[in-house]
Amino acid sequence: QGILERLDAGEIVIGDGGFVFALEKRGYVKAGPWTPEATVEHPEAVRQLHREFLRAGSSVLQTFTFYASEDKLENRGNYVAEKITCQKVNEAACDIAREVADEGDALVAGGVSQTPSYLSCKDKAAVKAVFRMQLDVFMKKNVDFLIAEYFEHVEEAVWAVEVLKESGKPVAATMCIGPEGDMHGVPPGQCAVQLVKAGASIIGVNCHFDPNTSLETVKLMKEGLQAAKLKAHLMSQPLAFHTPDCGKQGFIDLPEFPFALEPRILTRWDVQNYARKAYDLGIRYIGGCCGFEPYHIRAIAEELAPERGYLPEASEKHGSWGDSLGMHTKPWVRARARKEYWQNLKPASGRPYCPSMSKPDGWGVTKGARELMQQKEATSEQQLKELFQKGKF
Amino acid sequence: QGILERLDAGEIVIGDGGFVFALEKRGYVKAGPWTPEATVEHPEAVRQLHREFLRAGSSVLQTFTFYASEDKLENRGNYVAEKITCQKVNEAACDIAREVADEGDALVAGGVSQTPSYLSCKDKAAVKAVFRMQLDVFMKKNVDFLIAEYFEHVEEAVWAVEVLKESGKPVAATMCIGPEGDMHGVPPGQCAVQLVKAGASIIGVNCHFDPNTSLETVKLMKEGLQAAKLKAHLMSQPLAFHTPDCGKQGFIDLPEFPFALEPRILTRWDVQNYARKAYDLGIRYIGGCCGFEPYHIRAIAEELAPERGYLPEASEKHGSWGDSLGMHTKPWVRARARKEYWQNLKPASGRPYCPSMSKPDGWGVTKGARELMQQKEATSEQQLKELFQKGKF
Amino acid sequence: QGILERLDAGEIVIGDGGFVFALEKRGYVKAGPWTPEATVEHPEAVRQLHREFLRAGSSVLQTFTFYASEDKLENRGNYVAEKITCQKVNEAACDIAREVADEGDALVAGGVSQTPSYLSCKDKAAVKAVFRMQLDVFMKKNVDFLIAEYFEHVEEAVWAVEVLKESGKPVAATMCIGPEGDMHGVPPGQCAVQLVKAGASIIGVNCHFDPNTSLETVKLMKEGLQAAKLKAHLMSQPLAFHTPDCGKQGFIDLPEFPFALEPRILTRWDVQNYARKAYDLGIRYIGGCCGFEPYHIRAIAEELAPERGYLPEASEKHGSWGDSLGMHTKPWVRARARKEYWQNLKPASGRPYCPSMSKPDGWGVTKGARELMQQKEATSEQQLKELFQKGKF
Amino acid sequence: QGILERLDAGEIVIGDGGFVFALEKRGYVKAGPWTPEATVEHPEAVRQLHREFLRAGSSVLQTFTFYASEDKLENRGNYVAEKITCQKVNEAACDIAREVADEGDALVAGGVSQTPSYLSCKDKAAVKAVFRMQLDVFMKKNVDFLIAEYFEHVEEAVWAVEVLKESGKPVAATMCIGPEGDMHGVPPGQCAVQLVKAGASIIGVNCHFDPNTSLETVKLMKEGLQAAKLKAHLMSQPLAFHTPDCGKQGFIDLPEFPFALEPRILTRWDVQNYARKAYDLGIRYIGGCCGFEPYHIRAIAEELAPERGYLPEASEKHGSWGDSLGMHTKPWVRARARKEYWQNLKPASGRPYCPSMSKPDGWGVTKGARELMQQKEATSEQQLKELFQKGKF
Repeated sequence: QGILERLDAGEIVIGDGGFVFALEKRGYVKAGPWTPEATVEHPEAVRQLHREFLRAGSSVLQTFTFYASEDKLENRGNYVAEKITCQKVNEAACDIAREVADEGDALVAGGVSQTPSYLSCKDKAAVKAVFRMQLDVFMKKNVDFLIAEYFEHVEEAVWAVEVLKESGKPVAATMCIGPEGDMHGVPPGQCAVQLVKAGASIIGVNCHFDPNTSLETVKLMKEGLQAAKLKAHLMSQPLAFHTPDCGKQGFIDLPEFPFALEPRILTRWDVQNYARKAYDLGIRYIGGCCGFEPYHIRAIAEELAPERGYLPEASEKHGSWGDSLGMHTKPWVRARARKEYWQNLKPASGRPYCPSMSKPDGWGVTKGARELMQQKEATSEQQLKELFQKGKF
Repeated sequence: QGILERLDAGEIVIGDGGFVFALEKRGYVKAGPWTPEATVEHPEAVRQLHREFLRAGSSVLQTFTFYASEDKLENRGNYVAEKITCQKVNEAACDIAREVADEGDALVAGGVSQTPSYLSCKDKAAVKAVFRMQLDVFMKKNVDFLIAEYFEHVEEAVWAVEVLKESGKPVAATMCIGPEGDMHGVPPGQCAVQLVKAGASIIGVNCHFDPNTSLETVKLMKEGLQAAKLKAHLMSQPLAFHTPDCGKQGFIDLPEFPFALEPRILTRWDVQNYARKAYDLGIRYIGGCCGFEPYHIRAIAEELAPERGYLPEASEKHGSWGDSLGMHTKPWVRARARKEYWQNLKPASGRPYCPSMSKPDGWGVTKGARELMQQKEATSEQQLKELFQKGKF
Repeated sequence: QGILERLDAGEIVIGDGGFVFALEKRGYVKAGPWTPEATVEHPEAVRQLHREFLRAGSSVLQTFTFYASEDKLENRGNYVAEKITCQKVNEAACDIAREVADEGDALVAGGVSQTPSYLSCKDKAAVKAVFRMQLDVFMKKNVDFLIAEYFEHVEEAVWAVEVLKESGKPVAATMCIGPEGDMHGVPPGQCAVQLVKAGASIIGVNCHFDPNTSLETVKLMKEGLQAAKLKAHLMSQPLAFHTPDCGKQGFIDLPEFPFALEPRILTRWDVQNYARKAYDLGIRYIGGCCGFEPYHIRAIAEELAPERGYLPEASEKHGSWGDSLGMHTKPWVRARARKEYWQNLKPASGRPYCPSMSKPDGWGVTKGARELMQQKEATSEQQLKELFQKGKF
Repeated sequence: QGILERLDAGEIVIGDGGFVFALEKRGYVKAGPWTPEATVEHPEAVRQLHREFLRAGSSVLQTFTFYASEDKLENRGNYVAEKITCQKVNEAACDIAREVADEGDALVAGGVSQTPSYLSCKDKAAVKAVFRMQLDVFMKKNVDFLIAEYFEHVEEAVWAVEVLKESGKPVAATMCIGPEGDMHGVPPGQCAVQLVKAGASIIGVNCHFDPNTSLETVKLMKEGLQAAKLKAHLMSQPLAFHTPDCGKQGFIDLPEFPFALEPRILTRWDVQNYARKAYDLGIRYIGGCCGFEPYHIRAIAEELAPERGYLPEASEKHGSWGDSLGMHTKPWVRARARKEYWQNLKPASGRPYCPSMSKPDGWGVTKGARELMQQKEATSEQQLKELFQKGKF
């Protein structure tokens, strides 16, 4: 059954987790470029991570093609010279995902994300050509459906959806925005409307913000669609980091990004809480992005096991709500084998010299920038950047 | 070259990280039992983790035989019925470790740890028989050297060393104790002396405490050896969690153990700091235990690259001190591409409703227990347990 | 010169601090009732506090008549039987304030605040009669101007202003609301318009929220007046507690209210920051409410000394920005004698087992309450209260 | 009845709070010099504070003569020229204390503290002469007993006690040290022994550390006396600030000293906890030092009311354990009117951008200093200072 059949039937679809962050920690992806040449260089490592997500309950395996557009790969190193072409990276990603998906009952989704071409102001045709190059691989490898994800500008996301729709396959589209909207100031509700009109059947957010903030954004998208009398399935794939202190541009501006985010990592109980809230909001495609490890995905699957009617395979190695502690020799550890304990625990950081929140860096949040925004001298991030470069603040 | 040749020559030996915690998050180990049947059930997952540690710089791959003694495995489930015998688990562990070690220049170490037999007061012969059963496999598979690790009682650790010495192979011994000493009150210096006298060539600590506390303990061991005019190589494999609020028994008593330790996870910079301090203290076998992921091991290898003269393979995907951020589009993210930035950052938890420290659970730290200790009515944990069970506090 | 002459001339008027909180700590006011019978029982204590505020730079001494309406005093204890009548409390308050004001160049302001009569739904005439009883004393004692402060409902505040205007004296009106508006949902801008139309020459906020939140509210009031093309002087007298975690009803709902607010107390540097921001926003009547001690008021006067052209008397005992530390024997304490040090310091709480934020108590913030609000079943706090009492959530 | 009669009879004696900190906030004392010329300049302010402490339950009023030795006053400004001589300051202090003490049943204690003469290495005779000058005033004004307090070096404290003993009046002696002992390294137990041998009938600690640390120090003093078979009454007057992060020299080295200590202020419940612990330890002279306001002293008196058999006068304005909240209109505020609530509350700081602990400043805690100490090149603070000045670290 395809993705839309599943969602139309009311099934809960569980996404997978964050490949670039997980593989960076495993030693196969470089922070900064964040490109997925590991599909060619170390396929066994990519395969193993897919397998862990499948085992944890993922209904969809996304091809590891994040930032695998040709312009990005070129940007980040001379891949052609090493014969690791864009095409090879994308093909290998499809092959690995399909191989593992066939070990279970998962779908394979081909993914594209925002491009350097757009950010450097190339025109619509040029940007679309970039997406089309990846799409060609996805069609050749016959993925089950397509995802346009990690877009900061709805304009580019719409272009991506338009290209992907050419395939005739179902298209999902998620933006990496918060409740304040996209980088040109388009609010989430309007982003949702544009994406659905462009052909997306599933819309939502991924990355950049924690579950609470992301769900707030999806809620605004949902309201936007309702107001426009449009229908779409909802999807959320947030960070596995607590980011209540983010500004408009998300976790990249936090001083801890990307090498000191550890104290912000969600516990499995935080994830169960997220899964429940997402479900209550009507979201039926529930996954994660950067920071989501296999055990976080398993937590989604365990929280929603009553609704889905089954546990994921990896739960054979996990007692629900900590019940595997029930046989511990110490009575006070045994006392932790219950839901109330973990739900109510406020976990300590072990870091008494550290604060609980940070001020995001960046001109995006300086007084000058905000005021210019308010004074309407600048209505977009792009204009602010220009003003910043001219030394206006 | 063997482990002792390397250490005697002044080489820095880098250990590996924490298998049970890493594989629990990947979905292959159950928290609570913490047993390693994954070597038989999912060898590809164990192999991949070994490979990541090797790539990150580990000079030693420990067989994944933690808690793989027969009494423990039986204790935790009917493995015999499922044909996953103790022998099979240990053999598979050796085969996988050797296979990956041969992909590089690493040694294979066979490991034993504390046993239920000792805790249930079986006699010396019975406990030694348990160790010997694992040793038989290690000899058959011809591991390079042996480690007795994770012992709370020096008496049992000594018995383990005595058994392992029968093999004629070099023996390392690490205890999971803090500066207050073992569970019977034997101080670290005295533990070290007993272990060396029993035949250990390398001694130190692993697990239960964070790097700061662990290094304090190793320092006491070193001083004990000096006072006794004994020589041994020093070794440390601490937690990758900040635990300044631990009591005598370590992180198990913290309310966050084992499912909400995320805010305590060390950053890679915390690990570099640890590696440098360990080196300065004279430790030359430097690794990690629970919580250490491949990128933490890489951080040890990167910190000590000047002394070792080379970087690990996985550093091809990691810029030293964040220098891969130097090409980021945002100027304030580029500004993070330097050592001072990451060294001085006090990372926020993103959890304003959580405290920074916890009170450990357990009767071990209650007023009643401390007072009984002080009044000498109880001189050991065991006696305290009995008094506790009799309702004395 | 009267209050309006001063403000019209562009003078900065500095208010005084929080009497009920300061005198509670000194032993003369009971938390809970918070009534000012100390004016009769312990006039020397009230006088001393006035004197300290005068010395710290207050341009206005408010009569200590908070909650001194007859209905409140009766409500809170049998004062009549003890011959401490409402009239006596108010008269004594006026006498003490005038006595101390004459020691300097301060004005005396008679103050009224919200009444039990309004909250128990008495009619306009009845509520106005309560204010009129206090006004009679203020007229007899000839205070310089009048303040209606600490109103949660703009309707009652308007009634108070109308009564006070009968006197012909200038009237200031401040509400204890945040950016979300009054308890019936009237937004700050609209509150401001109503108060000015009722006759207030000075409007703003006092109590219930920290400086940041209060200034945000005043900003909304200012914008409301501008939109309505009305003019008034702006005034702010916030808490001296950090309350970023407040809900709509302010600090009373915080779990720490009123006996564990210590960790939230503003430093003098926090107050200087507040004074500067208030000034920049165009506020010219700048004071404090609960938690403001004399040294906090002095901090306002010191921050704005460049604009005012003089320091308060109490600055003879205070070096600007810590410069009295310049002669300390320890070099690292001497290094604290500078503005940058204190401005940038992030003061530690010394409380590693405590969080940095709390969840406010109360049905006001429960899911049920919010949803009822959204569903428009309840549009006011009053209705929510009724629904609450009926057990609807 | 005199102080010793009271203590010998088993009575609990309650001290007063911190004058220099309280009067600094009220505008009468300058931070840095911390001298008490307010007794001459503003006697009404000093009198009022005494009165508040009396009302809060203080059994003893200490003359406000802290740092009122002639060498200190000269050091800090040309007092003679202004005719505010050392003698006048001390006389006025005695007169004010006696006047207020006579309003109740309190004793007056004349106090001396450490001198610049000692710190600049004047000889025993010269230092004693300084104390004798203050003692002459105390004898002339006939105080009830004498206190030598705030000494960092036991040698100087002993000299002070020897001088005070010449009077024939009872002498108490408290040092501002922690468990590590005095600045020359004399441990607390030994300090206690020396002070009792010099003639002190009451010994203990004041200032520099929080209650927990101070009680630990008094415990060591008590054990020292027991070991030496000496007897004395015990006394504690700690800070009203949480200082778990202090080094050996106490709160002065904390970065927040003295102008940003607010987040560390004890709640009244923290004080009740302290009073109970002090009582349980056998301390019968229980008071406070810097940071203790009248309501903190009242908390001691309320906690120990069962033992003492009565409440202080100021409790007429304070419900025990918050019971005055029992009539609040909001049900969740009423729910705070109970002991368990306030005892278990972990109060939030409202400061999410601040840490919970600080690193103390100063060479006293630098690695260099510690190492020199360990290498025995320097055995005292004085020598460290010299090495520091020579640039050794």
